[in-house]
Amino acid sequence: MFTPAWIIKQKRDGKELSQPQIHQFISGLATGEVADYQASAFLMAVYLQGMSQNETVSLTEALLQSGDHYDLSAVPGVKVDKHSTGGVGDKVSLILAPLAAACGVKVPMMSGRGLGHTGGTLDKLESIEGFNVRLSRDEFIAVLKQVGCGMIGQSDRIVPADKRLYALRDVTGTVECIPLIVASILSKKLAEGANALILDVKVGSGAFMKTKEQARKLAKGLTQVAKKMGLPCRAVLTDMNQPLGFSVGNALEVWECTQILKNERASLNGYEFCSSDLKELTIQLCAQMVELAGIRKNLTEARKLAHAKLADGSAWGIFQELVGAQGGNLTRFLTKDQFTHSPRMVIWRAKKRGYITRINTETIGQILVELGGGRKKVSDSIDPHVGLVFHKKLGARVQPGEPLVTLFAPESRDLTELEALFFDSIEISGARKAVPKLILEVLA
Amino acid sequence: MFTPAWIIKQKRDGKELSQPQIHQFISGLATGEVADYQASAFLMAVYLQGMSQNETVSLTEALLQSGDHYDLSAVPGVKVDKHSTGGVGDKVSLILAPLAAACGVKVPMMSGRGLGHTGGTLDKLESIEGFNVRLSRDEFIAVLKQVGCGMIGQSDRIVPADKRLYALRDVTGTVECIPLIVASILSKKLAEGANALILDVKVGSGAFMKTKEQARKLAKGLTQVAKKMGLPCRAVLTDMNQPLGFSVGNALEVWECTQILKNERASLNGYEFCSSDLKELTIQLCAQMVELAGIRKNLTEARKLAHAKLADGSAWGIFQELVGAQGGNLTRFLTKDQFTHSPRMVIWRAKKRGYITRINTETIGQILVELGGGRKKVSDSIDPHVGLVFHKKLGARVQPGEPLVTLFAPESRDLTELEALFFDSIEISGARKAVPKLILEVLA
Repeated sequence: MFTPAWIIKQKRDGKELSQPQIHQFISGLATGEVADYQASAFLMAVYLQGMSQNETVSLTEALLQSGDHYDLSAVPGVKVDKHSTGGVGDKVSLILAPLAAACGVKVPMMSGRGLGHTGGTLDKLESIEGFNVRLSRDEFIAVLKQVGCGMIGQSDRIVPADKRLYALRDVTGTVECIPLIVASILSKKLAEGANALILDVKVGSGAFMKTKEQARKLAKGLTQVAKKMGLPCRAVLTDMNQPLGFSVGNALEVWECTQILKNERASLNGYEFCSSDLKELTIQLCAQMVELAGIRKNLTEARKLAHAKLADGSAWGIFQELVGAQGGNLTRFLTKDQFTHSPRMVIWRAKKRGYITRINTETIGQILVELGGGRKKVSDSIDPHVGLVFHKKLGARVQPGEPLVTLFAPESRDLTELEALFFDSIEISGARKAVPKLILEVLA
Repeated sequence: MFTPAWIIKQKRDGKELSQPQIHQFISGLATGEVADYQASAFLMAVYLQGMSQNETVSLTEALLQSGDHYDLSAVPGVKVDKHSTGGVGDKVSLILAPLAAACGVKVPMMSGRGLGHTGGTLDKLESIEGFNVRLSRDEFIAVLKQVGCGMIGQSDRIVPADKRLYALRDVTGTVECIPLIVASILSKKLAEGANALILDVKVGSGAFMKTKEQARKLAKGLTQVAKKMGLPCRAVLTDMNQPLGFSVGNALEVWECTQILKNERASLNGYEFCSSDLKELTIQLCAQMVELAGIRKNLTEARKLAHAKLADGSAWGIFQELVGAQGGNLTRFLTKDQFTHSPRMVIWRAKKRGYITRINTETIGQILVELGGGRKKVSDSIDPHVGLVFHKKLGARVQPGEPLVTLFAPESRDLTELEALFFDSIEISGARKAVPKLILEVLA
């Protein structure tokens, strides 16, 4: 047996920890042998000294073993989940889960809540009245069997050691650390019982990883460790230099998804809004899932299937079924006009002529948080109806006075500071700049 | 205001923290704004990223301000303290405090207890029955006025933030870190109200700093930060590649000191023991204190004074007065033969001919701990009567069968393993090797 301090010192000195050492440290979190203040010193040592691939595998295993492991063998078919590293306006899961299910993939999706500038799938789903993301294991399996996909939050019994470490990382400056991110994501995905995994690794001003190099490092870490753990996995590096789709805000984003699923064009007060990037990314991720599940032999065929299942309304049918199976009232959600829920709509207009060349997307996420549509602390509650709808995105040409965004804000909120923040985050230049590619790279 | 996590991230990223940031973090320890797990992540970040001199000054100030500050202005004269970074058989303080007082220096000494392989002055003093190291501030000032020196432990109200940080460092692998050591030592010394400070920085197999380079770095950090804090300071780098003096063990060490103070040669069972290194180091450190206090103009004169006050019995007189003033029964200590207190005396003898060329002094300290004469944990109690007396030290020529040490052990203790440990720690070679110099360097 090693003392916790001894294990911390090894990592502090840049040494490679053995599997038993890592397992002892992580299991010590539950037994009380390892105190929180020791775990946080360990996390900082890992942040600054790194971890080898073998160490990351051991950490993933140790986290996985700290809690329950779902057995989905009762559900026929190949179970594939998708995980995004988080972005602004990233509502892909809501379209992708029913679309992949329509293609024959089983999609057991365990998602998180929004924290900081990035949104969370659970919060979005809960803007549909009655939607229950807290299914028991048996209820989840029943939905998955019936609908082909299910969308829930993590139970407390799934990787409790990761929950404890994550809470510490959040307050000790040790969040942005690749081996810790890899072990945290993969332990949860392994615990939920998926057979394969697609990772959407976001890059850019609205993502945790601001550069392609960082994102590629994370993607490599994820795919390599997943493979060592026996989980087939692909990572897609995608652009997050602007919000995905046109909407940012929980109910607005669900509404945007329903428009895509219904093959309708979103419009408001005579303005039309464009979701082409969101739709394209969803199709691409779906094709990866379909190919990984062995339903089609290559990506071209898989892509065709995904297009067809979106176009013929199958995905929309499954989405409606899913909402119903999880207790949500979609009719009520769609009957109410999402654009009128908010007590106040404000249009922020371009102040000069030019092309939109940069959007500080993290700031957009922070504006949503300030409006009450996101969380600063885990315990914050959120207002599903606030948000932003983008009339123009990167590369668009604008004239002075043209609408840039329509804001959905609480009645009493003073918008002076937020408006300044917004205009600081948008660069309008005389010279056009290339719009970043949506899909940067696929790592298998 | 900065959040604790933000301050941790700055240090994590190798940035220099400002004075307000460091003060906010340290004062947050007391208010509860900063949790233990945040402090330990911060300590690991400091361990791995270091601190500038300005940051170390700010940390020292912040620790100092966390508790009481003694005002010794009621005691006439220049108050000079000595601090040792810790060694094996390091009993210098017990001779130095009365000797410097005999030379006219006022010596307000706040010492610690032994932990791990190094001994502590308080434990040594407490082997004199009745000796009270827990004086109130007023009692301490009264003893200092009356005797010229006083020897106590730190009250709980002296730098409480350092106590909290030290407890965390001990269990999170962040002890051996120069800026943290510097701030910890100096904040305590500044709080006790000394006007000047002599630092005995130990180097070698029995010290925390194993190389001269490490020790010089620590000494420079200490003297430079002390000066920035307005505390005149000198650091003496001294050898700790063998125990200092002939004895290791609490009562044995006090006895060795009394022999030096009385100008007597220690002998036992017909064997004579030599304290020349201990005596020489004490004279040198005393000379530094005398010169720093302005009592003599140069070191040569200061050294002469120290020699004279040891030779004429003045230091011995003050030692007796000190013990009396702090409640100790010296007569009883000296009447009992220290060498017969222990139920068992064992001699370990040389197994081959040659010169003693190396002593793993840390191991000697650990043997004392194993005998019950030191602590593994802060809460351990100690047996003052156990220990080792060295017949031979580095450079000595030995014949097979000649005594190397006499061991004072508890009756029931099996010594097999300790004996093996001892013989592993002593190297006897055919070829003589130079004995390390006692005083390596003085940094002012």
